[in-house]
Amino acid sequence: MATRFQVLPGFRDFYPDDCAARNYVFDVWRKVSRRYGFVEYEGPMLEPTELYTRKSGAEIVNQLFCFTDKGEREVSLRPELTPTLARMAAARHRDFRKPMRWFSIGQFFRYERHQKGRGREFYQFNCDLLGETAAAADAELIALAIDLMRELGFTTEHFRLRVSDRNAWVRFAESKGLEGDGIASFLQIIDKMERTPEEKTRELLGVFGITLEAVRKLIGSGAEVSPVLAEVVENLQQRGLGDYVEVDLGIVRGLAYYTGIVFEIFDIGQGMRAIAGGGRYDQLVELIGGVDLPACGFAMGDMVITDLIRATSEPCRRLDEAIAADGAVDVWLVLADETKQAEALSLAQTLRDAGFRVALPLTPAKVVKQFQQAESSGAITAVVVGSEFPEVAIKDLAKRTETRCAAAALVGALRDLLGNS
Amino acid sequence: MATRFQVLPGFRDFYPDDCAARNYVFDVWRKVSRRYGFVEYEGPMLEPTELYTRKSGAEIVNQLFCFTDKGEREVSLRPELTPTLARMAAARHRDFRKPMRWFSIGQFFRYERHQKGRGREFYQFNCDLLGETAAAADAELIALAIDLMRELGFTTEHFRLRVSDRNAWVRFAESKGLEGDGIASFLQIIDKMERTPEEKTRELLGVFGITLEAVRKLIGSGAEVSPVLAEVVENLQQRGLGDYVEVDLGIVRGLAYYTGIVFEIFDIGQGMRAIAGGGRYDQLVELIGGVDLPACGFAMGDMVITDLIRATSEPCRRLDEAIAADGAVDVWLVLADETKQAEALSLAQTLRDAGFRVALPLTPAKVVKQFQQAESSGAITAVVVGSEFPEVAIKDLAKRTETRCAAAALVGALRDLLGNS
Repeated sequence: MATRFQVLPGFRDFYPDDCAARNYVFDVWRKVSRRYGFVEYEGPMLEPTELYTRKSGAEIVNQLFCFTDKGEREVSLRPELTPTLARMAAARHRDFRKPMRWFSIGQFFRYERHQKGRGREFYQFNCDLLGETAAAADAELIALAIDLMRELGFTTEHFRLRVSDRNAWVRFAESKGLEGDGIASFLQIIDKMERTPEEKTRELLGVFGITLEAVRKLIGSGAEVSPVLAEVVENLQQRGLGDYVEVDLGIVRGLAYYTGIVFEIFDIGQGMRAIAGGGRYDQLVELIGGVDLPACGFAMGDMVITDLIRATSEPCRRLDEAIAADGAVDVWLVLADETKQAEALSLAQTLRDAGFRVALPLTPAKVVKQFQQAESSGAITAVVVGSEFPEVAIKDLAKRTETRCAAAALVGALRDLLGNS
Repeated sequence: MATRFQVLPGFRDFYPDDCAARNYVFDVWRKVSRRYGFVEYEGPMLEPTELYTRKSGAEIVNQLFCFTDKGEREVSLRPELTPTLARMAAARHRDFRKPMRWFSIGQFFRYERHQKGRGREFYQFNCDLLGETAAAADAELIALAIDLMRELGFTTEHFRLRVSDRNAWVRFAESKGLEGDGIASFLQIIDKMERTPEEKTRELLGVFGITLEAVRKLIGSGAEVSPVLAEVVENLQQRGLGDYVEVDLGIVRGLAYYTGIVFEIFDIGQGMRAIAGGGRYDQLVELIGGVDLPACGFAMGDMVITDLIRATSEPCRRLDEAIAADGAVDVWLVLADETKQAEALSLAQTLRDAGFRVALPLTPAKVVKQFQQAESSGAITAVVVGSEFPEVAIKDLAKRTETRCAAAALVGALRDLLGNS
């Protein structure tokens, strides 16, 4: 052997336990989305590079896995889904009742420095509501985001959803005489304020004739500065979700395409990155696809949330339970008499046809060893096929009890015991 | 607007119905795998190009989406999973009980001419049993492959699994004095026989001093030419799956790494490509990862099987049913009195917390229109919140019946009606 192959830096192998953890998060994303009447869609992993430069400018190329394909096309592994969504929605928006409630779960790629909570590939949940301008749409989306967290086992102790209205800042900037690019630059300053030294912020604001005090005053005010924001907050209170929500006008979101309500979910006390974020983007579908389709949406990546689950007791318990359940079979078939192999195989087929998860020995092994394997595997029951066949023994491996039944009655007996299938 | 963006050639957009169809196939793959005690894993979408050239030679590069990344690494979008599996299994084989029963569902990329049943991207189910040389392992895998087809609704009318043993050919070739590369070249001739004019095959075989008649005689013989093949067939008969299986020594599989039993699933009568294929590859993990781990596995792509489902009545019915169920909510909340919005939102939250899929109006609309929307959406029930609140009406939209209950009793009433959650 020359080289031993390794996974590329920033990429991940998902061994079975990792994959079960990934699937658990996917299942929660899917389950909660469906409760809100959202349907799943997916776009291609590879898109024309221009789809991203159109929206975000040429500098995005530095973060892209981009290349020239064998047909001389400039293509990129997708760094995000929103441009694809805009392309797809614009192309076929007439085929769908509005509002469109769409979600997606897929993988994305960004060539950046490998760091905690962010790899060069990651999975992301995207959830968008298209064709509705009412504040109730923003609230519906925010409620869904909160319910994702609740379904994972997080409570008001663990996270807050901070909501803001970019338009409050646009109106503020306009009142100070700014317009166009000036407003965009001003929003960038607000976005970076928390991570910028105070003196620097003061200086940057000074260029626009705005004081840090005036900015702080707006940040300190509540939902009353924006009727839309007030409506969103009231809507969430009516749902009983008010305790999860905090008005924080310091949130403006970096991306230029947001046009109204914006929000982010933050953990409390773990100091991680934002867990999810999104907002209203009423002009993007027009920009990408030439169709006027107002929309709001948000995204949640798999890496930060999984780190947070692992660091929090109840969410971690639920995850571990899901991982254990994923790997365990319902029935470990123990062959106690090798002359009964044909009967054991036929029985395995019957159980599998009935929907049970069944493991069976592929080579002869001592009965004691077969039981050891069954127990260490986490199997729920062992069914022993031996010389008494067609009578078989069912062992409940957790309770360590044994019952006997006819092979023909085994499906019913197992259904009673396992309470499912 | 300058350009309208389009999906790249050979790539697919999955609009909600397409995505539901995809997920239905994924669910069947997952469900049946779990019945066989298999656990899911996943590897990275991007791997070092050498991982593929090591196994398949430099010419594979012509079919790869390969490029140089920003860190000067030669990388490729994965064209198949087996090399990644071999890498992963070799790296951590000590952590897993043998045999390892692993499956994976993911996307793959090949730069080839776009044609029916094959795009430049496709999803593929991979299923492998590692660490077991017994013929019972090959049979277990083949049984799983057959059960995938059965679970989709296919019967003996629709498909056959053709099974063969490459070693029967190796022994034949050896008896004719061939060895090493000669055997490999000979196997290539057998693999391509069906698609090659008879005279050409005769000529190619002649080089090795072998007659077409001798080859046809071996193809015409049955499982008795290989004890392992006979054991696999008997095992499948004991499971009651004999009718799905056909010994066909004409199957040798193109890839050089197979070392024993090989098999393919073919449709009957539709003339499509092979639906699935695989076999034993006892040396590949050693080649890629330097660890002696005998294995067998198979793969099934999403495109041919989906075409076949669409072309076959019962499988198509199951698929359509799954698509319809995917898009429908349990409850369409109808707001008949706008002063009850807070109550309706609170009720929606309660129902969603209980696991129901609920749609609700985001803007005021006439009651008649809300009902029309509910019905055209395929919703199962409509729940009317009106001036009688806290009494609500439940309409069963299929049966067109109405019942009334207290809002506080709604979760129970809906569970009775929907028979689930």
